[in-house]
Amino acid sequence: MESKSPSASRTTMTDMVLPSETNPLNNLFGGELLARMDRAASIAARRHSRRITVTASVNHVAFNRAVPVGSVVTVEAAVSRAFKTSMEVYIDVWMEDRFSGERTKANEAIYTFVAVDDTGKPTEVPRLAPETDLEKERFAGALRRKQLSLVLAGKMKPDEATELKALFMGA
Amino acid sequence: MESKSPSASRTTMTDMVLPSETNPLNNLFGGELLARMDRAASIAARRHSRRITVTASVNHVAFNRAVPVGSVVTVEAAVSRAFKTSMEVYIDVWMEDRFSGERTKANEAIYTFVAVDDTGKPTEVPRLAPETDLEKERFAGALRRKQLSLVLAGKMKPDEATELKALFMGA
Amino acid sequence: MESKSPSASRTTMTDMVLPSETNPLNNLFGGELLARMDRAASIAARRHSRRITVTASVNHVAFNRAVPVGSVVTVEAAVSRAFKTSMEVYIDVWMEDRFSGERTKANEAIYTFVAVDDTGKPTEVPRLAPETDLEKERFAGALRRKQLSLVLAGKMKPDEATELKALFMGA
Amino acid sequence: MESKSPSASRTTMTDMVLPSETNPLNNLFGGELLARMDRAASIAARRHSRRITVTASVNHVAFNRAVPVGSVVTVEAAVSRAFKTSMEVYIDVWMEDRFSGERTKANEAIYTFVAVDDTGKPTEVPRLAPETDLEKERFAGALRRKQLSLVLAGKMKPDEATELKALFMGA
Amino acid sequence: MESKSPSASRTTMTDMVLPSETNPLNNLFGGELLARMDRAASIAARRHSRRITVTASVNHVAFNRAVPVGSVVTVEAAVSRAFKTSMEVYIDVWMEDRFSGERTKANEAIYTFVAVDDTGKPTEVPRLAPETDLEKERFAGALRRKQLSLVLAGKMKPDEATELKALFMGA
Amino acid sequence: MESKSPSASRTTMTDMVLPSETNPLNNLFGGELLARMDRAASIAARRHSRRITVTASVNHVAFNRAVPVGSVVTVEAAVSRAFKTSMEVYIDVWMEDRFSGERTKANEAIYTFVAVDDTGKPTEVPRLAPETDLEKERFAGALRRKQLSLVLAGKMKPDEATELKALFMGA
Repeated sequence: MESKSPSASRTTMTDMVLPSETNPLNNLFGGELLARMDRAASIAARRHSRRITVTASVNHVAFNRAVPVGSVVTVEAAVSRAFKTSMEVYIDVWMEDRFSGERTKANEAIYTFVAVDDTGKPTEVPRLAPETDLEKERFAGALRRKQLSLVLAGKMKPDEATELKALFMGA
Repeated sequence: MESKSPSASRTTMTDMVLPSETNPLNNLFGGELLARMDRAASIAARRHSRRITVTASVNHVAFNRAVPVGSVVTVEAAVSRAFKTSMEVYIDVWMEDRFSGERTKANEAIYTFVAVDDTGKPTEVPRLAPETDLEKERFAGALRRKQLSLVLAGKMKPDEATELKALFMGA
Repeated sequence: MESKSPSASRTTMTDMVLPSETNPLNNLFGGELLARMDRAASIAARRHSRRITVTASVNHVAFNRAVPVGSVVTVEAAVSRAFKTSMEVYIDVWMEDRFSGERTKANEAIYTFVAVDDTGKPTEVPRLAPETDLEKERFAGALRRKQLSLVLAGKMKPDEATELKALFMGA
Repeated sequence: MESKSPSASRTTMTDMVLPSETNPLNNLFGGELLARMDRAASIAARRHSRRITVTASVNHVAFNRAVPVGSVVTVEAAVSRAFKTSMEVYIDVWMEDRFSGERTKANEAIYTFVAVDDTGKPTEVPRLAPETDLEKERFAGALRRKQLSLVLAGKMKPDEATELKALFMGA
Repeated sequence: MESKSPSASRTTMTDMVLPSETNPLNNLFGGELLARMDRAASIAARRHSRRITVTASVNHVAFNRAVPVGSVVTVEAAVSRAFKTSMEVYIDVWMEDRFSGERTKANEAIYTFVAVDDTGKPTEVPRLAPETDLEKERFAGALRRKQLSLVLAGKMKPDEATELKALFMGA
Repeated sequence: MESKSPSASRTTMTDMVLPSETNPLNNLFGGELLARMDRAASIAARRHSRRITVTASVNHVAFNRAVPVGSVVTVEAAVSRAFKTSMEVYIDVWMEDRFSGERTKANEAIYTFVAVDDTGKPTEVPRLAPETDLEKERFAGALRRKQLSLVLAGKMKPDEATELKALFMGA
């Protein structure tokens, strides 16, 4: 299978924040944003693999900025690294001020998807060939995140997570 | 402020999986489950704090089991530790087989919420007093997770995350 | 078939009232509450029968209290009596004040479900064995309600509804 | 206030049954039909009173016919009797076979609404002047149903429900 | 196939404007009205043809009046002309003032549907026999609109659109 | 006010077709696509004008291709010409085959929006400066379409629609 660039899977989902998606402060519910990011990331994973894709995990997500009702929200997702049958998808979320049009980063998130066939069995996916500096940086980080994920799931001993260990030991 | 037990905030949200919430394999979208868990956890945080609560972060979530259309899904959320203005909420998700009625664990997730006043300013919350063994274990783990969160956000040096460091150094 | 207790079917559905579900006074639409109760009661009937269940009837429902947007609503449903292929489900609805956390009874309702097989044909269900005083009281009342239902449907002569007749004749 | 005829409030709501509204047998959920009927009946009550209207109660409703996905459902609601501040609304539901176009009665239901001002306080409504035989029959029945409702709510002694008592005593 | 009158397909869809369907000025989104009109018109086309119907085109639609949240909107659709396998459906939209009950025309629109069999292949439909003056006027106009549609799609030379040409040449 | 290029307003909305949005042939409802296009186009108009924008009209739209459930649909909208207070927005819709990833044009549509202030009063918008050949072609066509729209609305005599007249007279 030929490798693909992140731009081949890049997915842009722009939409408004409707009143039915907001909390008592009239800001977008965190859960609604998680659901939108899942749909966008799932399309990116499908574009990379041309398979049915199912959400395998969501990395730690922080909600640093409130997104008020009536905002325009842009979710951009692209595959950041491909493993054997799974793909890490990196998601950037921007919001636009309704009047100034100023665009600010509202969130970042990282989801992992598995490509499956019609019976739900995992199948191989193309490799990812990062091109820009940012794509290369995210590609490199993906391995560290995979190790953290395996450690947290009890599937890898902290000891063997060489990439991750270095982070905490200053090595 | 008096401390509260986890049972004071325990929230049960039982509902069916409808066709409009499923992926091409007829299983619940990961994003829909994230949104349901957010609503249940937000109610638990509100019950503990009696304040408006906003999602601050979501810990790493793994989706290990597909949840087919027509399943009954039970989301159970309870505050697992309270900090100054924030609360960690632990969420257990079960699914029931339609015919045998057998109940299996479908997911676990951990969300953090901040209590705010009407202007969105963080306000203090009561402390949590865990009672059962499981509640005590989750209470203890919450500190480690908070450190990991701070390290990942670049707000704490890995070096100072004593709880976490021990994990990777076998100390 | 072994009999079951009401607690085996008890179903708790806690959720918020969203702006899209409210009338011009910003209170929950009666129809939305009827739909939520139907979903909760249907799950309770399925838990008792382990069959597909379809709504057969809804008893008289009074809406005595307005439920404002942003409230937390808890719908609790449990089978109150089983007949040959049908089940009466008793539903209690509570609402919580957002700030005091005070919980007040918002509604009661009684739905009847029929258990069916994949072709829609009614099938037998286990008997119900009430345990608490309240469960026994609701179990007893169910027979009277069934007679009223049959009379209203023109399937029983008022004369034969012995339980019901007593009510109006002071006998 | 001038009296009005039922035709002045008659409300027709025709729509399809969508896949997201159906149970595992691919028929319309009872709860969804209850919600549709509430919306149609609420509009009828508003047309009669020209006030905000809130659902006060729902009479016994039986679901005798399954309504399959893809059906066209017509809900017709009209005020059947007006009391001081409340209105009884009679609802007829028809379904059409997709191919033959044959129209069959799927349901009947009776809801009661109260007219309120902007603060939620009940306000007077015009009287109803029934015209056709069916309208007159429903108008007469409304008093009997109101008594039953008051008896069931414990607000009237069965003894005083003269209209109703007659029904059970053959008087 | 026998011809049918427009009244045989007339479809009335009355419903409220909910907060989740409105723009920042609290008026119904244009897109929501387009979707409601599509559902009503599709039912009208199905009633005329007794076939599955799919939207083929939408004529020019102007939105002249804002429809505020809480309004009652009535969409009335009826087949205005039948061609071999397609039907033009004329849609009138009214809105009612919440308090005065005054009914004003909010919109008109014209959709075209094709009748298809289960495989999606176009199938013949009955002819339309207009009865009232308005029905006859719309029937006549349908031919001119069909020519415009063909010209705009590049399937007819402007030259051959005799009906339409007359309009612009004053002939 | 400085003029803006079409790329300054270009809006991409990528999303899946869910089962709840499909007709009996399992293809996207025409009305749902009209609603999605309205949301995307409305964002484009807002990006150009930095004002609240309301839908003024929709040009003739033809639905030439069925869009099956599970497809990925990309709606791309950009302002094609600005008039005094209104903007024409050109919309291109693509669908992707789930497996081959092949992208085909599914639709084109043209909506017009008016920029308004908080009271709903029309306000001036920046001029559009087209850059590419396609943008220039759409810019030129916009005047002809505006004339057609005015003629159809009876606000311009066919005789004065010089651009349009030429089309039908071969002049």
